[in-house]
Amino acid sequence: MSPFSLPKISPVTEVWRDQIQQKIDTKTKPLGSLGALETVALQISEVQKTTSPSLEHPKLILFAGDHGITEEPVSLYPKDVTWQMVFNFLNGGACANVFAKHSGIEVEVVDAGVDHEWEKNTKHLIQKKIRRGTSNFLKTSAMTKEEVYLCLKTGLNLISEPKYKDTNIFLFGEMGIGNTSSASLILSHLTEIPLSKLVGKGTGLNPQGKETKLQILERAYQRTGKLSDPIEILSEFGGFEIGMMTGAMLGAAARQNLFLVDGFITTAAYLLAYHIDPNVKDYAIFSHVSDEEGHIIVLEHYKIKPLLKLNLRLGEGSGALAAYPLVELSVKFMNEMASFADAGVSNSETNS
Amino acid sequence: MSPFSLPKISPVTEVWRDQIQQKIDTKTKPLGSLGALETVALQISEVQKTTSPSLEHPKLILFAGDHGITEEPVSLYPKDVTWQMVFNFLNGGACANVFAKHSGIEVEVVDAGVDHEWEKNTKHLIQKKIRRGTSNFLKTSAMTKEEVYLCLKTGLNLISEPKYKDTNIFLFGEMGIGNTSSASLILSHLTEIPLSKLVGKGTGLNPQGKETKLQILERAYQRTGKLSDPIEILSEFGGFEIGMMTGAMLGAAARQNLFLVDGFITTAAYLLAYHIDPNVKDYAIFSHVSDEEGHIIVLEHYKIKPLLKLNLRLGEGSGALAAYPLVELSVKFMNEMASFADAGVSNSETNS
Repeated sequence: MSPFSLPKISPVTEVWRDQIQQKIDTKTKPLGSLGALETVALQISEVQKTTSPSLEHPKLILFAGDHGITEEPVSLYPKDVTWQMVFNFLNGGACANVFAKHSGIEVEVVDAGVDHEWEKNTKHLIQKKIRRGTSNFLKTSAMTKEEVYLCLKTGLNLISEPKYKDTNIFLFGEMGIGNTSSASLILSHLTEIPLSKLVGKGTGLNPQGKETKLQILERAYQRTGKLSDPIEILSEFGGFEIGMMTGAMLGAAARQNLFLVDGFITTAAYLLAYHIDPNVKDYAIFSHVSDEEGHIIVLEHYKIKPLLKLNLRLGEGSGALAAYPLVELSVKFMNEMASFADAGVSNSETNS
Repeated sequence: MSPFSLPKISPVTEVWRDQIQQKIDTKTKPLGSLGALETVALQISEVQKTTSPSLEHPKLILFAGDHGITEEPVSLYPKDVTWQMVFNFLNGGACANVFAKHSGIEVEVVDAGVDHEWEKNTKHLIQKKIRRGTSNFLKTSAMTKEEVYLCLKTGLNLISEPKYKDTNIFLFGEMGIGNTSSASLILSHLTEIPLSKLVGKGTGLNPQGKETKLQILERAYQRTGKLSDPIEILSEFGGFEIGMMTGAMLGAAARQNLFLVDGFITTAAYLLAYHIDPNVKDYAIFSHVSDEEGHIIVLEHYKIKPLLKLNLRLGEGSGALAAYPLVELSVKFMNEMASFADAGVSNSETNS
């Protein structure tokens, strides 16, 4: 990828696996009985190269952007909701704020391309606006290739800022009216799954509204024909918030930090990152499968098993935040539970 | 049910439903987009007759008991693990302790019938031993009818103790080597689902061990033939910890308190309560479907949709504790999220 160089992402080595698994297996519980929490504990420990993992200064970063496709009838909500919801995040009133506060997670919002001007130095707002919304991808490319590179680079650089030096886990989420449309097209190009399976109700379209959305997106697909290069896909159909999140995920993985993937749109950003560098997968924790119809199809396509299925379809990192306590429990059982030997509990015949 | 009178359990009225739903629907999110968390928020609010629900002084009560059936080869672990794990709970080293601490939940252990003598006044241990383990139900009834009534009454009375007066939500869990065997028989009699579908690996039997367990339990089934009365089922196949938990659930519902149902064995206790008084269902929050093969079959039989599916099979309330943060988030979004009007966010055309 040019014109800037991607950071190297090291795959997680399995050198410590036996030692970590050994610690998991001597805890006072039947072998394997903590199921998915053991899988998460193993992943976190391997990434951190330790049998005593920790979660330090978790941050939720919400990327926001507007979409030219909202000129067409693809969403139930007016485009203004993007900036209004950014205000809501900044004022602490959104679901993301409430859930983040529960787990002591700081929330930051990145304006990647919102159609609104902000006061300088607005607290908790990182102003990285590329443009006030992408172009309408039914008619033309959503953004230029230069804008794609700028998105990726901005996301990458953001994660390297000194203020995050003590953070070892990120949660990513998004806000952008129209971005299920963008994500559906991105995912259809990456996976070759037809749009008809990936276009869903978004914020709550009825069947007729969904059919209209599908027809519009199929016309957009026909404008370019099948694409496979992630940069080209982002340029044609991307959102600024999606591209910047892709960069941030690559940056987090390059730092060997874990990150939680949220719902349908965040998964599109993740899969762009994965198609740029598959090693990113070792650092991703998949939080949930959402109620957006295409999400489960895409996750199954990549054999990804997320932690939760709660029929959420809110975005803004809400699924990642709902899963975060489970990640905390995974780390805590590793550090705080007694072993059979500690507790003087008899092990099973097969274990002992 | 005699010889003591059951408390009256009032069904939850729907009088406040519209008002509660209205509050949920004006929060700054697409309609219904918090999925299962909205369902939980509605349930809690209805039980508490308020649009501002709260969770007060949550308690985890773990019921422990031994099972005569462990004379047969039905479990991977020796029977002594029951009392050893009770020690582990009392010393704070078990998974239940770690997960409970994460959410600020106090843990208490009830000795309903453990084959061990304790020091008087052991901290966090409630000594309600019926007997040092049930009889081997392959050969005879697990307990007498009088013991069944004593279990239920003890569980009921426990929940009414003054120390719980400020608690409005309970989590129930269990410990008892051999109790998946007991639960499988209870559930097979209650549901008419054949034992072959309800007998699982328990703490981790291999396929051969599972087959042996199934054959033993089928012989136990043949000893009585089909039963349908919950009291009779408990008497023939119950565990003291299961019966006492059934009583506690009836008691919690009678107090109009919510409680979280844990895994396979706790579900057996719940369904005994449900067959005694179906109104108990309004107060139960189903936390997870476990990796014990029969659990999902039973939950589907009753059309119960639990919050989590993490392949846990540990018991001791671990699934209820893993789900508890989601219950907290449900309550918090009701109380802390801004409404469209508060936040100055435009609503969709269908909402406004």
